[in-house]
Amino acid sequence: MPRVVVDVMPKPEILDPQGKAVQGALPRLGFTGVTDVRQGKRFELEIAGEVTEAVLADVHRMAETLLSNPVIENFTVHVEQDA
Amino acid sequence: MPRVVVDVMPKPEILDPQGKAVQGALPRLGFTGVTDVRQGKRFELEIAGEVTEAVLADVHRMAETLLSNPVIENFTVHVEQDA
Repeated sequence: MPRVVVDVMPKPEILDPQGKAVQGALPRLGFTGVTDVRQGKRFELEIAGEVTEAVLADVHRMAETLLSNPVIENFTVHVEQDA
Repeated sequence: MPRVVVDVMPKPEILDPQGKAVQGALPRLGFTGVTDVRQGKRFELEIAGEVTEAVLADVHRMAETLLSNPVIENFTVHVEQDA
């Protein structure tokens, strides 16, 4: 069944307290060399039938209206073929 | 600067109430054809310097110990080259 993935990330100009918390924890756990961490969301949508242009347009509308907050978040949509 | 992405998703056998909530909302918003939704997390790590095998091994350990809960979540690590 085809799978469409929507990645939602905070916009670069938006503060990301979750990402900052992770970034702050890394050195305490002994990890160095990470200069920035951003935390976002990943949605995996299983699609019934083929992923047509119309389906992708629908997923874009879902991402805009339900999965992301366009004021503070960007999203990307891509198709992952799955077993 | 190279970017390493860690995707964290609930294991298939684990209930995913957030995903189910999204899935339940889609028909009410007029979207059909989505048979399942899983919601997870996406972490974007900016790395200082090159992404070597040692860095990727470090990121795997971060993912295991800090970014995911291995009891209920799976994770994948991949590199995204960025400007």
